[in-house]
Amino acid sequence: MIVELRSSVNEKRAQEIALDIKAFCIHYDGGYVLITSSSTKELDAKYQSEAERVTVLNDDMQLSSRAWKKETRTIDINGVKIGGSTNHTALIAGPCSVESEEQIEQSAQLMKELGISIMRAGAFKPRTSPYTFQGMGLDGLKLLAKMREKYGLQIISEVRDATNVEDIIEYADIIQIGAKAMYDHGILKRCGKTQKPVLLKRGFGTTLQEFLQCAEFILAGGNPNVILCERGIRTFETKTRFTLDLCGAAWMKAHSNLPIILDPSHAIGYAYGVPDLSRACCAMGVDGLLIEVHPNPKVAKSDASQQLNHDEFRALTGSLKSVAAAIGRKII
Amino acid sequence: MIVELRSSVNEKRAQEIALDIKAFCIHYDGGYVLITSSSTKELDAKYQSEAERVTVLNDDMQLSSRAWKKETRTIDINGVKIGGSTNHTALIAGPCSVESEEQIEQSAQLMKELGISIMRAGAFKPRTSPYTFQGMGLDGLKLLAKMREKYGLQIISEVRDATNVEDIIEYADIIQIGAKAMYDHGILKRCGKTQKPVLLKRGFGTTLQEFLQCAEFILAGGNPNVILCERGIRTFETKTRFTLDLCGAAWMKAHSNLPIILDPSHAIGYAYGVPDLSRACCAMGVDGLLIEVHPNPKVAKSDASQQLNHDEFRALTGSLKSVAAAIGRKII
Amino acid sequence: MIVELRSSVNEKRAQEIALDIKAFCIHYDGGYVLITSSSTKELDAKYQSEAERVTVLNDDMQLSSRAWKKETRTIDINGVKIGGSTNHTALIAGPCSVESEEQIEQSAQLMKELGISIMRAGAFKPRTSPYTFQGMGLDGLKLLAKMREKYGLQIISEVRDATNVEDIIEYADIIQIGAKAMYDHGILKRCGKTQKPVLLKRGFGTTLQEFLQCAEFILAGGNPNVILCERGIRTFETKTRFTLDLCGAAWMKAHSNLPIILDPSHAIGYAYGVPDLSRACCAMGVDGLLIEVHPNPKVAKSDASQQLNHDEFRALTGSLKSVAAAIGRKII
Amino acid sequence: MIVELRSSVNEKRAQEIALDIKAFCIHYDGGYVLITSSSTKELDAKYQSEAERVTVLNDDMQLSSRAWKKETRTIDINGVKIGGSTNHTALIAGPCSVESEEQIEQSAQLMKELGISIMRAGAFKPRTSPYTFQGMGLDGLKLLAKMREKYGLQIISEVRDATNVEDIIEYADIIQIGAKAMYDHGILKRCGKTQKPVLLKRGFGTTLQEFLQCAEFILAGGNPNVILCERGIRTFETKTRFTLDLCGAAWMKAHSNLPIILDPSHAIGYAYGVPDLSRACCAMGVDGLLIEVHPNPKVAKSDASQQLNHDEFRALTGSLKSVAAAIGRKII
Repeated sequence: MIVELRSSVNEKRAQEIALDIKAFCIHYDGGYVLITSSSTKELDAKYQSEAERVTVLNDDMQLSSRAWKKETRTIDINGVKIGGSTNHTALIAGPCSVESEEQIEQSAQLMKELGISIMRAGAFKPRTSPYTFQGMGLDGLKLLAKMREKYGLQIISEVRDATNVEDIIEYADIIQIGAKAMYDHGILKRCGKTQKPVLLKRGFGTTLQEFLQCAEFILAGGNPNVILCERGIRTFETKTRFTLDLCGAAWMKAHSNLPIILDPSHAIGYAYGVPDLSRACCAMGVDGLLIEVHPNPKVAKSDASQQLNHDEFRALTGSLKSVAAAIGRKII
Repeated sequence: MIVELRSSVNEKRAQEIALDIKAFCIHYDGGYVLITSSSTKELDAKYQSEAERVTVLNDDMQLSSRAWKKETRTIDINGVKIGGSTNHTALIAGPCSVESEEQIEQSAQLMKELGISIMRAGAFKPRTSPYTFQGMGLDGLKLLAKMREKYGLQIISEVRDATNVEDIIEYADIIQIGAKAMYDHGILKRCGKTQKPVLLKRGFGTTLQEFLQCAEFILAGGNPNVILCERGIRTFETKTRFTLDLCGAAWMKAHSNLPIILDPSHAIGYAYGVPDLSRACCAMGVDGLLIEVHPNPKVAKSDASQQLNHDEFRALTGSLKSVAAAIGRKII
Repeated sequence: MIVELRSSVNEKRAQEIALDIKAFCIHYDGGYVLITSSSTKELDAKYQSEAERVTVLNDDMQLSSRAWKKETRTIDINGVKIGGSTNHTALIAGPCSVESEEQIEQSAQLMKELGISIMRAGAFKPRTSPYTFQGMGLDGLKLLAKMREKYGLQIISEVRDATNVEDIIEYADIIQIGAKAMYDHGILKRCGKTQKPVLLKRGFGTTLQEFLQCAEFILAGGNPNVILCERGIRTFETKTRFTLDLCGAAWMKAHSNLPIILDPSHAIGYAYGVPDLSRACCAMGVDGLLIEVHPNPKVAKSDASQQLNHDEFRALTGSLKSVAAAIGRKII
Repeated sequence: MIVELRSSVNEKRAQEIALDIKAFCIHYDGGYVLITSSSTKELDAKYQSEAERVTVLNDDMQLSSRAWKKETRTIDINGVKIGGSTNHTALIAGPCSVESEEQIEQSAQLMKELGISIMRAGAFKPRTSPYTFQGMGLDGLKLLAKMREKYGLQIISEVRDATNVEDIIEYADIIQIGAKAMYDHGILKRCGKTQKPVLLKRGFGTTLQEFLQCAEFILAGGNPNVILCERGIRTFETKTRFTLDLCGAAWMKAHSNLPIILDPSHAIGYAYGVPDLSRACCAMGVDGLLIEVHPNPKVAKSDASQQLNHDEFRALTGSLKSVAAAIGRKII
């Protein structure tokens, strides 16, 4: 149950009621909002005069649901806007990992050349083997910050676990919570306490319901700026690395008020299919795409097989603009 | 191993060699072609002078593979062409089931109105419960044939099992082998003996390798006219009925020479997501789309939740034309 | 809804009522039973005096459900009994395929030596590639019949598709419907018209609900002798061939009145794990096990990797007896 | 590649070589062992005189593999031993969560009564919704410590994320890393630095290869005491909560040197199936079972549906002893 309190209710009183009805209390859109478990189906009569609107829900997808807020949220990344009524499809691109200053600068220059505002690159890599490249860590983040300054880019980079969430909050413009970390309470709760945008990736074994409930940890913690990212789920098919769930994306578009970004690169895991899949993602009318591109994929230290080279990516951006235009959207 | 015999080799000799090397023998593109198991890696020296070209393959995806024939096959459905160099994206639409003459005539009129050449509708329904509508059977096929005559449409309808394959071959212009029947040797072998185009749907629990191997049963039987159809695979996600595997479609485009058609309706199972998914499928650059549309979905006797109504479908076809144009293709 | 008519109601009257309420009519346990769709929730008042008992159900798992009949059905295979109150765990063993008289006779002799009553072997093989061994066909069935005569065994063999169901009904004592054929209406409906026991395997992409609904096709057709067989489902894990679903077996034991047989050989696909898995299956307290054993697995023409050799199988049967005894059951 | 150095090589020299060949260096079984990526296939000639044994492996399952160490590791939990040559099957039981002192004391008394040495209970719960019970936290751990003192039990409790790993290391005798946290580098690396036994649960979307590679993070960090736990994977089947992967357990028994524990309670998610599944797990010949039991399941604050009550659990332990005895093992 979501209770929007009247604007006359101050913070102290809001917290008081929250405590009594076992609710989270957040400040949202100029007022206080209380959220209880969805098993609570009624607001005590004594508080009803203080409530502007009460929304009773069937399950714990609450703040993220269109049942509560019909319109898609607008997320503002230092002036770069997605969602809401923007009709923007944001291209977010860059290499899997920061590997060196030279490499990441080539990537930054490509973003600049193509008019792309947001660059992605990992510094703390959640690899599945201890015997492979684990990322440059804090040094990688510092290189990303340098590129931001030099090229005026927004930076998105991934939290690996709760021990490095502070570093990401400090250095990145969008905090990425990866597929393997998306259930991590240490990360989710900390992200609820900042106002920086958070891109939450769906785990490859995660149901849509669980995915939105993880987003609720951040939203109920007080951060309204959550973006959902579908990046492929694990199925029986192994000719491709994962299976991009566009049916799930259609469901999220219909049921959630959070902007949606799709990641075709991690889904298929092979560069040959990324252009077609990217165009398909774009035609879904979502809020953005996350695409891996590397100056020299063959020598990439992680995910070498799925990264486009610069020429392939240039060609792709052209056709994405056409597809976006065909459905009344604009690539940014 | 695929052995293309020289044009000078006649049928009798071709069969003789086939018998000796345990191969299928088909007539393809003006000559005889022999196909052995992929575990055979070499043609006996005594036959080499009679071979034009020998293709050794790693697995049993042989006649269907781009490793053998680089170009996508062209399929000619009584003059309606897909695949090859056509750049056609065929819309194949119609209700889940033929329910009555009135209903199927309304569907046929819609196809006519929108310039769609191929109409789909099931007569023998492979339902999962014995206690639900099982289709009109032969009477349904006769109604479809009537619509073909009256409106000049091509008809695609589904074989339920080996006991009605003859009826479908007689009445339909494209034989549809459904997801539940795609391993059926009785059907596959019979379809190898006709030259009518066959649309083979991927089973929802079927790997891409198995899928192409099922197509091989038809191809090796002598029918070169096979179209692959991805219609959603079964995964852990249950908010949607199935998960449309566009990563798999990208893989098939890259590895198979057979045209590809996508079925977003069965994949998601809910009409609300069909338009976005259809545009995504179209943007993949495939050879066609299979979409369910019903004059009055609410009273449909099968798959009521996933069928578009006529107005929704009219709106969709408009946007599909724009998306197709954006990638240099044409909706037919 | 299941309507058990009073014993005074004769066949003609039963059929009359069935026609009126759109129900299947079967003869079961000495009387007539009508089954409608589960969406029918009430028997017309005019027929209530002719009904002994009416069972209203929530879904189309009806005749197979414990909600209708609490006790597990007893299946009598020419005197060999499983299910009911027998506490029998039947070992059903033999090679994947009949390959030659010598081979199948060695298998038959092993069954005899170990006191096993039911031998399995395939004659029509539903292979996934056209370029591999497809089974001996009718000749294989005749060899099986010969072994039955000579060694007093019961024979189970698989229907490949609707074109060979008559052959299997003629030659086998238990008709096996394999994982790939279990949705086949041609087979299911034909099996409903015989009284021979049918072992129905769950498809590897089939939900438990669909599985039981397929069994309903046979039961509603009039054949009460259906045995369910779980043989592994397809999941993301590929180190083993399939994933044996013992949680599903527990669910079936609790919810269905049909006997259950488990097939560890096809599930794991590798002989090394078959003994442990077989003991686990036995400890589940099910009605039987289906295990592949071959005189010389290395040269087997199909499923070579998963078949035990004779010595391994002898050792296994000893430990299965101990496990069965530990839970109060008896291996037959 | 695993390089076991001669006993004459001291730590300083071992670290020196490790640095040069980019290897982890651990102290194991009285000597130093270096582990490189499995892509390294040869030890430099200059170090060969210092190596006792070099094991070249095909993939990054190295220290955990039987290819390196044939025998199952023995894990000693303050005198309670599993694995190795013990033939012990450890029952690990207790409620899902610590809820109160009264509740957990009833659980402790049950363990005492039945001679069970290890009690499980969660204090930090990794729930999927923020709006449900999140566990008692540190207070819960203190209650568990109190029960350990009073009843002489070993305690296993779960790390939720990297922010509470120190608390679990301090209070528990076995550190449990749950299915949702198993990729967490913060936790895995910290657990590599203690010598306390770690029970690592397989993620429900995790392949066996990834699972063993996660164990490698702990092993390569220097902690040899890792126990693997299979607790069900996520599949298309939803009648049960997860699908217990006993084929996977068979694979792990054959390929890994780490002890294996199975968790039937979380797998099926419903108490009705837990006894049969527990007996099946026991018959697999694994090193232990993890079973949820609660003084009053109906009022449990988490996982209410899957917990056995005390009487059901008493009955189960009796039959588990019989099954274990039938395969030559002993329940502890």
